[in-house]
Amino acid sequence: MQETLATLDTPAAIVSLRRMQHNIARMQARADALGVRFRPHVKTTKCADVVAAQCAAGATGITVSTLKEAEQFFAQGITDILYAVGMAPHRLGHALDLCRRGCALQILTDSVEGAQAIVDFGREHGHAFDVLIEIDTDGHRSGIRPDDDSLLAVGRALHAGGMRLAGVLTHAGSSYELDTPQALAKLAEQERSGCVRAAERLRDAGLPCAILSVGSTPTALETTSLEGVTELRAGVYVFFDLVMRNVGVCSEEDIALSVLTTVIGHQADKGWAIVDAGWMAMSRDRGTARQRRDYGYGQVCTVEGTPIRGYLLSAANQEHGIVSCEGAADADIVARFPMGTRLRILPNHACATGAQFPEYHALAEDGTLQTWGRFHGW
Amino acid sequence: MQETLATLDTPAAIVSLRRMQHNIARMQARADALGVRFRPHVKTTKCADVVAAQCAAGATGITVSTLKEAEQFFAQGITDILYAVGMAPHRLGHALDLCRRGCALQILTDSVEGAQAIVDFGREHGHAFDVLIEIDTDGHRSGIRPDDDSLLAVGRALHAGGMRLAGVLTHAGSSYELDTPQALAKLAEQERSGCVRAAERLRDAGLPCAILSVGSTPTALETTSLEGVTELRAGVYVFFDLVMRNVGVCSEEDIALSVLTTVIGHQADKGWAIVDAGWMAMSRDRGTARQRRDYGYGQVCTVEGTPIRGYLLSAANQEHGIVSCEGAADADIVARFPMGTRLRILPNHACATGAQFPEYHALAEDGTLQTWGRFHGW
Repeated sequence: MQETLATLDTPAAIVSLRRMQHNIARMQARADALGVRFRPHVKTTKCADVVAAQCAAGATGITVSTLKEAEQFFAQGITDILYAVGMAPHRLGHALDLCRRGCALQILTDSVEGAQAIVDFGREHGHAFDVLIEIDTDGHRSGIRPDDDSLLAVGRALHAGGMRLAGVLTHAGSSYELDTPQALAKLAEQERSGCVRAAERLRDAGLPCAILSVGSTPTALETTSLEGVTELRAGVYVFFDLVMRNVGVCSEEDIALSVLTTVIGHQADKGWAIVDAGWMAMSRDRGTARQRRDYGYGQVCTVEGTPIRGYLLSAANQEHGIVSCEGAADADIVARFPMGTRLRILPNHACATGAQFPEYHALAEDGTLQTWGRFHGW
Repeated sequence: MQETLATLDTPAAIVSLRRMQHNIARMQARADALGVRFRPHVKTTKCADVVAAQCAAGATGITVSTLKEAEQFFAQGITDILYAVGMAPHRLGHALDLCRRGCALQILTDSVEGAQAIVDFGREHGHAFDVLIEIDTDGHRSGIRPDDDSLLAVGRALHAGGMRLAGVLTHAGSSYELDTPQALAKLAEQERSGCVRAAERLRDAGLPCAILSVGSTPTALETTSLEGVTELRAGVYVFFDLVMRNVGVCSEEDIALSVLTTVIGHQADKGWAIVDAGWMAMSRDRGTARQRRDYGYGQVCTVEGTPIRGYLLSAANQEHGIVSCEGAADADIVARFPMGTRLRILPNHACATGAQFPEYHALAEDGTLQTWGRFHGW
């Protein structure tokens, strides 16, 4: 039977094909206009169909957050893969195995100790890994600050140790905490200039540094120049979400992921409709709680996808969600959303919500659905 | 190769067999002492091995939150299954199919409309469903208040419509918000007495009501009497977690689930160790944030499982976690937790953390590990 939004069991993760393609085209056009290669981060979707669409639009290689992602997409035929999490020594064997099977895997480090572990393992096994040095341009997580002494020490350890020092990489993840174009443009410039500064220091020391890779969805969309940079990365832009709406880089109408749910009961005097999308479906991500608009566990939309103003998924247990109106209780909730009503919920964070589902249902303009698998775990 | 905590890839979900068995025995002993049947909620683990241990210890039937759970455990040979989420009309066909295959499935409703949908579908297909009426004894979610007029209307609709009115069920989920034995005992009595009151009203109206089912982990452990009740339910007790520790019904040493992780880097001047357990491993659940002790994303333990006082997983990105000391930055973080160090993190919420993993690794006292699958999705 051909499933539709009216027949699909709920909860289900729905992807609007039109919106997804729009988002893909928008980011690829940004990278093209900025004169850099684009390498999407596939941790958002872990879905072969989505990544195929990103590659078809012009992406050159992918970024992954786990070696399982690398394995899955390598099996799909993608060979140019950047593993953008600091390399743990115990994973070098797996990385080597991927390389020996033909994967052009780039790995990452941000310490002399990490670099030395890569060198020791590489030499022992006669393999020169492609290594990027992670640069910290906003203090939010990992990386070496562009002017830190250890940058050259790491570069020298890798280069002298026979590894291929491929370049530098940074991710301005603190962009998720901003919400004006001015602040984002400023952070984007800090991300760019920090990365360029690190590359210059390496080159001035006689070390190779061909790749300068930057990006986060917000800075990618608000940067005005990527001079000196060779590659842009972004992940969540492919679906967007309510956190990104609050950051100011998309509208609710751009959000391509939603959770289809069914009304299973009411508490009429409280103005609540109970739905079968709880936190197991939405995830526990409450990323909008500290932003300018708190969407609870998500924005309620009609089954067609139109936001219903003022109605949020205000609370969630494992398999129960509570839909209510902001402000006074809706005295007409039972009539408004009768038992069996189907709704769609826009998520706070597309990466977290997607991970709750074994598959997406891709919705075409004609209402037909295709099932797209996604993988889970490590 | 026989994996150990030293060789297993990370992040991984570790279950301490000794602690799990202790928790199972503790709750079963409670139910036995209270003179009621015990029906564990399997949504916490979705794992055949865990549920087999619960059944072996004396559980009579299981509680599920999705029909997928019902299917999976029915396939495992468990036939006595309570589906404890309000029945959506569109799922009645699936429920009927389970019944016809030999599953003694009990379903739930809390409205005349829901009851009528069950009656209409049951009559159309010549099947008398076993139906419980959901009672709301603490206002936290679904259910009919014990003295509400609609209780008898629902009971009559089911009974007159030819369904088997099996009894009443309540869940004092607001117990998660309490943190003293007195408050929990009071809520447990409210849960018990409300359920008994609803049953009495049904019986006084000449309606059958054989089952009186109550429970949540905190109220189950703090109740002093279940007079009139026939059945106790609880879920998270099997593993416990930091939220339950804050509620006051377990200690950190009772928590059977932890996430094994590896140190992959540092920010020495900030006192941070970066680990490979981010929110994809821990879940986004920050349930302790509003409790008496905020554990961040989890309590850091040695690889042997001993809590390291003051060290929390203080922040999390998708595949990165930040381990830091509360208060002043630990100037010795690199020496304390060198690259490659393995740690275990106790989770805020075992149901949410477990759901992030395709499998558990059950750790025996001798250090050996068994792999236990768990299922995902709906």
